[in-house]
Amino acid sequence: MRRPYRSFAFVLAVLGGGACCRAAELPQGVADTAAALRSGALAGTGAFDLVRSLSHEVGPRLAGSPGDKAAVAWGLAKLRELGFANVRADKVTVPHWERGAEVGEIVTPHPQPVVLAALGGSVGTPEGGITAEVVRFADLAALQAAPEGSLAGKIAFVDNRMQRAQDGSGYGRAVGARGAGPTEAARRGALAFLLRSVGTSNDRIAHTGATRYTEGVTRIPAAALSNPDADLLAARLAGGQPVRFHLELGSRYLPDAESANVIGEIVGRTNPEEIILLGCHLDSWDLGMGAADDGAGCAIVIEAARRIGALERRPRRTVRVVLFANEEFGLSGARAYAERYAADLPRHIVAAESDFGSGKVYRLSSRVAPEALPRVAALAGLLAPLGVTQGDNEAGGGADLIPMAPARVPVLSLDQDGSAYFDIHHTINDTPDKIDPKDLDQNVAVWAVTAYVAAEWPGDFGRAPEPPARR
Amino acid sequence: MRRPYRSFAFVLAVLGGGACCRAAELPQGVADTAAALRSGALAGTGAFDLVRSLSHEVGPRLAGSPGDKAAVAWGLAKLRELGFANVRADKVTVPHWERGAEVGEIVTPHPQPVVLAALGGSVGTPEGGITAEVVRFADLAALQAAPEGSLAGKIAFVDNRMQRAQDGSGYGRAVGARGAGPTEAARRGALAFLLRSVGTSNDRIAHTGATRYTEGVTRIPAAALSNPDADLLAARLAGGQPVRFHLELGSRYLPDAESANVIGEIVGRTNPEEIILLGCHLDSWDLGMGAADDGAGCAIVIEAARRIGALERRPRRTVRVVLFANEEFGLSGARAYAERYAADLPRHIVAAESDFGSGKVYRLSSRVAPEALPRVAALAGLLAPLGVTQGDNEAGGGADLIPMAPARVPVLSLDQDGSAYFDIHHTINDTPDKIDPKDLDQNVAVWAVTAYVAAEWPGDFGRAPEPPARR
Repeated sequence: MRRPYRSFAFVLAVLGGGACCRAAELPQGVADTAAALRSGALAGTGAFDLVRSLSHEVGPRLAGSPGDKAAVAWGLAKLRELGFANVRADKVTVPHWERGAEVGEIVTPHPQPVVLAALGGSVGTPEGGITAEVVRFADLAALQAAPEGSLAGKIAFVDNRMQRAQDGSGYGRAVGARGAGPTEAARRGALAFLLRSVGTSNDRIAHTGATRYTEGVTRIPAAALSNPDADLLAARLAGGQPVRFHLELGSRYLPDAESANVIGEIVGRTNPEEIILLGCHLDSWDLGMGAADDGAGCAIVIEAARRIGALERRPRRTVRVVLFANEEFGLSGARAYAERYAADLPRHIVAAESDFGSGKVYRLSSRVAPEALPRVAALAGLLAPLGVTQGDNEAGGGADLIPMAPARVPVLSLDQDGSAYFDIHHTINDTPDKIDPKDLDQNVAVWAVTAYVAAEWPGDFGRAPEPPARR
Repeated sequence: MRRPYRSFAFVLAVLGGGACCRAAELPQGVADTAAALRSGALAGTGAFDLVRSLSHEVGPRLAGSPGDKAAVAWGLAKLRELGFANVRADKVTVPHWERGAEVGEIVTPHPQPVVLAALGGSVGTPEGGITAEVVRFADLAALQAAPEGSLAGKIAFVDNRMQRAQDGSGYGRAVGARGAGPTEAARRGALAFLLRSVGTSNDRIAHTGATRYTEGVTRIPAAALSNPDADLLAARLAGGQPVRFHLELGSRYLPDAESANVIGEIVGRTNPEEIILLGCHLDSWDLGMGAADDGAGCAIVIEAARRIGALERRPRRTVRVVLFANEEFGLSGARAYAERYAADLPRHIVAAESDFGSGKVYRLSSRVAPEALPRVAALAGLLAPLGVTQGDNEAGGGADLIPMAPARVPVLSLDQDGSAYFDIHHTINDTPDKIDPKDLDQNVAVWAVTAYVAAEWPGDFGRAPEPPARR
């Protein structure tokens, strides 16, 4: 293991790319411990075992489902078993949507069944399903450009293909249609909405994910087709004949249910009331085992914090692990946390969430007070041996940090390689075999160093600038 | 395009690897036309369009299903449209098995649904399904070693993982459990049989394929788990607690149905009664679109023959394309063909079948009279610019050629790279997007050269040695 900082009394880090001049001094002891955490994690961690345990022993855990309850029990048991303090389940009320049976088929011309998945929150179809002609749109903008009433009696199909990218930026460009598409289609008279899956794989597997209906607009059933099935439908439509499609969705809402944010702490040595928050979300979509989304994130933050707790001397501040309830279907846990701990948020020194699968971390972005950027640079220096560079100060952080943004909680974002993440994201294919344990170890190394330094190093990250628009 | 043989009056080819000495003389005109076919195909063919058409306009086409009938109609229309002569549908009676609904789940400990697919021909489960404890076996041999009665009231699970290989040889080593497993389990008292999918992908997609029951042994329901689900079940079993599994299969047999071998010919110029048979199978499993298995094979042989038919001068012998009915579930079409054309088989100069997906051809194997091996070597020489080497003389040929073996019809086997084939084989993932059109073009080049040379070059391949045991 490389330990490039061992021989220096101080680490002098300057702002990445800046010509000048502010430096942050990192005490030698902190740097040494960080290096030990780094090399220790790279030698192998228990993170993959945690992912496998959550995936295999709990599996799917959509908010409100029996799996959700099992996940809370799993989280409490694991955190206790691993020696965390103040382990608790903070109750959270969550919506409870259930998928039910799903059928899709091209009826004419050339009948053929297709693979699809209801979008999360979709209403079901009426008894007997919906059979109607399909109208294709290249993307959401094309749908939005269609005249009112032009889709009366039709099924709208948005055929935009998500592009692969290291930073996952193709997702942001494609996902708008998942949220807004059903409402935009309904406004124009459509009976149902079909979407090319927001995902990068050609596997014949559909990607779910939340949609949202706008108040006052008819709620129409909405489903995503796998990429090969979207190809099929597009090819049939290109044939020039009318294409009729049959859709049956058994999805429905049940009464709200009880879930919980599961919390455990490595209590600070001298400043226990100051919090370094490491987050992930405990819920998952119903289709897969939630290994990458977000079993990986939970394993990373739990294992990173556990390793800090196992140090000879705990850091000054408290490292708090929060396994948020129901990120996927409305951020219920995040909102409940921000409300319950509103009075404590000014003492949240920094927060970070791991929720982007298991790809290696390649960049440290932030949203901290500008005067704290030299500290971020110093931290990035400690992460450089792990292949991490410093990014900008515009980080949004994970979705579960959004409700804390008004309190200006500083955010660090440990940006992961998302090149392969959207092959399995929100699908039945989200299983632990897709994860390389060595990638998780690299993540644990990055998180352990980051959390430890933030918890031990005197001084803080100030308060974050006013929250930006969500990225 | 390379035309290495243009400047030679003759091609002198010697047996690959042999020290000595028999040579085959290939007339310059034949070599020139072969080179033109080769370069023409590499410049781009219609093969991919054929695969896409069959996949999208017919899709799944299991023997006896509506798709099977649609495929016969498609084959007749395509062969006529492409200018084949003597286009006909030779009736074939086929079995008709239907999958129905499928449910599998681990019940205890840690309940979780799994992805599985009934093996082709499996009986269904009784009303309400089967719930029983699972007993794992590492492979078929381990199951066979279990004492009689030892599986009474249990579900047997064979957990052998297929290995990836260029020649697909991992399939042969793993597939035995698919055929014999249910009977071996039933002999020991098992209520049902589960198999780790015979496939190389970690996608959460199950691989079906025919099983066979032995007369006089109880027929028990049988299904294949996707690789990630087999991992899950194996992990739970490794946990030491009893694992109970619930299985529901709605599969059943319907009355035999009518299908057909679809045949078209490029009629020989001087010896029309001498047949060069190019085969593929028109049926597919019910799960996918049958793009690789065997849409690709049909597209390759149709397009290769079509290009021969489009030559200025047709070859001396007849090139007959046979799209066999029901290869997958019992070789019905192949048996019917061998019976119907029994009197003509002595005039079948050579037969070959394309049924291994869309990977490039890398080897020409054969089963011909030993004295005809120099002709095979000469042919291999013409294929060398396409990356093809000469294999042995032990080729089995495609499955549909098996019923012709007693008539000692010579066989050429154009061995394809099967490294990726078993990722999608017999799955819902067998769709045209998995195929590289350039790979198909290379196949068409190989097949067009091979069929043309066999049809034009005077002399023949003798009669094949007595049939070997099926590889």
